[in-house]
Amino acid sequence: MLDVTAEGRAKHLLDEFGEALADRDIDRAVGLFQEDCYWRDLVTFTWNLYTAEGKDQVRDMLSQQLDTTDPYGWALDGREPVADEDGVITAWFTFETAVARGYGLLRLKDGLIWTLLTTMSELKGHEEPLGYERPLGAKHGAAKNQKSWKEEREEELANLGRTRQPYVVIVGGGQGGIALGARLRQLGVPTIIVEQNERPGDSWRRRYKSLCLHDPVWYDHLPYLPFPPNWPVFSPKDKIGDWLEMYTKVMELNYWTATTCKSAQFDEDSQTWTVIVERDGEEVALRPKQLVLATGMSGKKNVPQFDGMDRFRGEQQHSSEHPGPDAYTGKKVVVIGSNNSAHDICAALWEHDADVTMLQRSSTHVVKSDSLMELGLGALYSEEAVRSGMTTQKADLIFASLPYRIMSQFQKPIYDQIRERDADFYERLEKAGFMLDFGDDDSGLFMKYLRRGSGYYIDVGASELVADGSIKLKSGVDVDHLSETSVVLSDGTELEADLVVYATGYGSMNGWAADLIGQDVADKVGKCWGLGSDTKKDPGPWEGEQRNMWKPTQQEALWFHGGNLHQSRHYSQFLSLQLKARMEGIPTPVHGLQEVHHLS
Amino acid sequence: MLDVTAEGRAKHLLDEFGEALADRDIDRAVGLFQEDCYWRDLVTFTWNLYTAEGKDQVRDMLSQQLDTTDPYGWALDGREPVADEDGVITAWFTFETAVARGYGLLRLKDGLIWTLLTTMSELKGHEEPLGYERPLGAKHGAAKNQKSWKEEREEELANLGRTRQPYVVIVGGGQGGIALGARLRQLGVPTIIVEQNERPGDSWRRRYKSLCLHDPVWYDHLPYLPFPPNWPVFSPKDKIGDWLEMYTKVMELNYWTATTCKSAQFDEDSQTWTVIVERDGEEVALRPKQLVLATGMSGKKNVPQFDGMDRFRGEQQHSSEHPGPDAYTGKKVVVIGSNNSAHDICAALWEHDADVTMLQRSSTHVVKSDSLMELGLGALYSEEAVRSGMTTQKADLIFASLPYRIMSQFQKPIYDQIRERDADFYERLEKAGFMLDFGDDDSGLFMKYLRRGSGYYIDVGASELVADGSIKLKSGVDVDHLSETSVVLSDGTELEADLVVYATGYGSMNGWAADLIGQDVADKVGKCWGLGSDTKKDPGPWEGEQRNMWKPTQQEALWFHGGNLHQSRHYSQFLSLQLKARMEGIPTPVHGLQEVHHLS
Repeated sequence: MLDVTAEGRAKHLLDEFGEALADRDIDRAVGLFQEDCYWRDLVTFTWNLYTAEGKDQVRDMLSQQLDTTDPYGWALDGREPVADEDGVITAWFTFETAVARGYGLLRLKDGLIWTLLTTMSELKGHEEPLGYERPLGAKHGAAKNQKSWKEEREEELANLGRTRQPYVVIVGGGQGGIALGARLRQLGVPTIIVEQNERPGDSWRRRYKSLCLHDPVWYDHLPYLPFPPNWPVFSPKDKIGDWLEMYTKVMELNYWTATTCKSAQFDEDSQTWTVIVERDGEEVALRPKQLVLATGMSGKKNVPQFDGMDRFRGEQQHSSEHPGPDAYTGKKVVVIGSNNSAHDICAALWEHDADVTMLQRSSTHVVKSDSLMELGLGALYSEEAVRSGMTTQKADLIFASLPYRIMSQFQKPIYDQIRERDADFYERLEKAGFMLDFGDDDSGLFMKYLRRGSGYYIDVGASELVADGSIKLKSGVDVDHLSETSVVLSDGTELEADLVVYATGYGSMNGWAADLIGQDVADKVGKCWGLGSDTKKDPGPWEGEQRNMWKPTQQEALWFHGGNLHQSRHYSQFLSLQLKARMEGIPTPVHGLQEVHHLS
Repeated sequence: MLDVTAEGRAKHLLDEFGEALADRDIDRAVGLFQEDCYWRDLVTFTWNLYTAEGKDQVRDMLSQQLDTTDPYGWALDGREPVADEDGVITAWFTFETAVARGYGLLRLKDGLIWTLLTTMSELKGHEEPLGYERPLGAKHGAAKNQKSWKEEREEELANLGRTRQPYVVIVGGGQGGIALGARLRQLGVPTIIVEQNERPGDSWRRRYKSLCLHDPVWYDHLPYLPFPPNWPVFSPKDKIGDWLEMYTKVMELNYWTATTCKSAQFDEDSQTWTVIVERDGEEVALRPKQLVLATGMSGKKNVPQFDGMDRFRGEQQHSSEHPGPDAYTGKKVVVIGSNNSAHDICAALWEHDADVTMLQRSSTHVVKSDSLMELGLGALYSEEAVRSGMTTQKADLIFASLPYRIMSQFQKPIYDQIRERDADFYERLEKAGFMLDFGDDDSGLFMKYLRRGSGYYIDVGASELVADGSIKLKSGVDVDHLSETSVVLSDGTELEADLVVYATGYGSMNGWAADLIGQDVADKVGKCWGLGSDTKKDPGPWEGEQRNMWKPTQQEALWFHGGNLHQSRHYSQFLSLQLKARMEGIPTPVHGLQEVHHLS
């Protein structure tokens, strides 16, 4: 009896797949995949973030991992309809492994698996205390010398890192460290977050005055506590700073402010890190089992070296140090760079009547915020999506289910549409001399973000100022040198300047590892971020996943966490489960540990 | 063609009702009600919280209000199924008035209206900027000298109450003032909240150490920002304090801490209050149009006067001043009173090895927390309710739809059940000499709360200590006098004491009006809280609604707001709409302004 509904076909495939895996019949399981297939696994089969591409890699992964994974109980998620669109059947499903519960998304073409996403929801026996399982709070029943919630919390704050060691130390308390810290707390993993600033959220507060998030609110929710419905679409920096501060407190994180991480050393024998931090002038040695660097995927600033920088008598600032425009009314400013920060800083300076020139050294991708929201994110992250029943969790999983290898194919049509829609805008911009691109393969902003984390501006108004000359533009030239009073360009132009802003971006996160742990470890783990797409600033070979992010690295017990709010939310789930499993002594055989192809 | 489905019948009734009202055919409209009927209106028809009981009151209300209300567009809410249970059809509906959008709940018996709830959702043209309408945050497009979010917020904080007057001043910054402040901010009503403590949440933090909310989390959500799923069932006092502090900041309230309200005077000519406050040692005169007292439905402490209180050499504290047990290990303590605070304080003292005696002067209602949660609140406010699709908003409206007059009939069976379930428990308690009651008419805790706001203990463990004698009990006696070292009872017993705690409750909120504005105004508005049920501490005549709460009073432009977190959340909606309408000059003809029958 053939069930020819989409649901029937998805169920049939899932049943067969489950049976094949239960029988350890890898040939039969692999036979259920298309030739052109992708299986992205987040922690369930591989204890890694890993995409198997093609049948051989699927076979290889299963050969190594199937026995220890011991998956079973594959079933369609009855709450989600099975979709059938353009010949692709899409179905949500649940499953279990020996140690975990999983959730996944399946796409079938011609009755066979085209894409498969398997993700870990929770470790059995270590479920988060949410909903029915939330803590009681009050201590019902009487007992001698009960401590109040406040006393217990104060005791924890006083003892953790002193008389009692954390299992995890997270260096960096931005959204990344905070989201991960919240999940680890829920999982009962003793954690200290080390942050150099005075208050949670300062890494946002201290940036230039006009900064607002470039991603909309629906994309930015932190775990557990979504923004309220009156939250602005694009959070002003101080408001997001306040939210992070509040979140840190409400989630009861052990968050050490005004604390600088000086060094970290891993002892192979004891399998323990020694992390030296300076807290309020006092040196404290922390001895965690796991160390997470959450210092920002764009953490360490890149400052170019030009002749004459030491002679120049005006001010020089990296964009991360720029305080905003107030002090520069009537001054001459040269901003070197043409990405997000450069544009925002130029616009704010113009608004405050500075004489500002943007120096564009190489082409930049520009996309209008409206267009990006509507065409790029709208289906998953928008008020419309929410009203039509899209949850943040579901959106994140759909997003995660698109294999990196073919993601650019999904992205390109969006940017083709944007280019058409905003043709006038782009024409005006190019007429002003601005060098535009849409990425090496015209796949636009999001691929640039994943590949190199730079090279674009989400336009919220500055482009019009460039187009109409309000912000002066010099493009296609570089800096030759600085004189005492000016920036001299490679074409001989001399730009008088009171202030030079280097909006020249940030280096790879393993630079932080070099500073804290040593160049040897930085080299051992290699470059962070990027996919190996063999496009500008993302050299090949192909990696399959983002390098070193949220997954095991070549240095045992060292992890990198970061990215925008979306990634901080989504990937903190999988990183926290990897850490929890290790704390609990659950075997975590890693499949496909990445090799190092680039040092930075 | 008769449509005999429940939905068909509800639709038919609603259509007829809408037609009758549109035609101003009051006879026909009244004819659609049962003899025994209740129409509870929250602000839409009456600009009041008002329950019409019986056809005559419905007729009377419509005669006065129908023309100005001009209701239309009555329609079933298609998202909510119509229920048909035990001969009662229950249906949700929407409607509009000349100035507002409304939402309601209808119960039909024998095809006629038994209960009707009409509530105001929003004022047309003054909708809250939520969801689609949320603010943009970032200021797209460039303009000279734009201010950042932070600068605008700082400017507002500096100017409001100085160069620019608030429309509303709320005295008291507990959950009541905060919830109302949040709603008023969303509605664009300039508001200052005046709070005497140093930090938002201090009114919780400063209470006795072991205090936790006695209501569960599902009942306690504030507007806009619900507690996360990991929030404890019963919030510890410091945790709820921190949440309120965070909420105040996230919601951008103009919250003046460390500010004492000295006096308030209403000027009839200018229709303006002069509110004198002392802020950081400086006297500031605020001139709002509306004054809200949100100083707590149990705000002003009741301290009994006993002979010898001045001679007693130990410590004496009202329960609101009791710091917790730590300093009293090994000491002798007499706690006068037998309600919630008395029990909590006694239990914590026993836990810290004090020798503690509870003096029960009159009978008390006790109900175990588990039983109350399960049988009393579970259907509307519980994890089960959430999972079965119950939202906080819907639960609040169902709750609000039960007319006060017959509410005790709904409550009594619950407590009959509890009495049976916990029979052993109650027997043990009475054996120890504890004087139990279930309210004058056996309707239990919630009616006691609504009628008098006192007279009960939600047992979280102290009752077992009373039953087994760990907490010593003296009951059925009163205090005769205090000696230098003891409390001497009316039966001659002498209780040695190092500390006497007066857990003797709080007075009526209009006591605050007496202090701030004058005894004349306090007498003019009369007693707050209670229903006029003619039961203990709630003298008749019947009022129909809670006296003076969240609705117009006999003193123009003076309002009372307060209650538990549920009431603070729910009724702040209706109070904020009443205030907003007045600010916008929308006519607000009040029907059924309450008369004053008791001064306090």
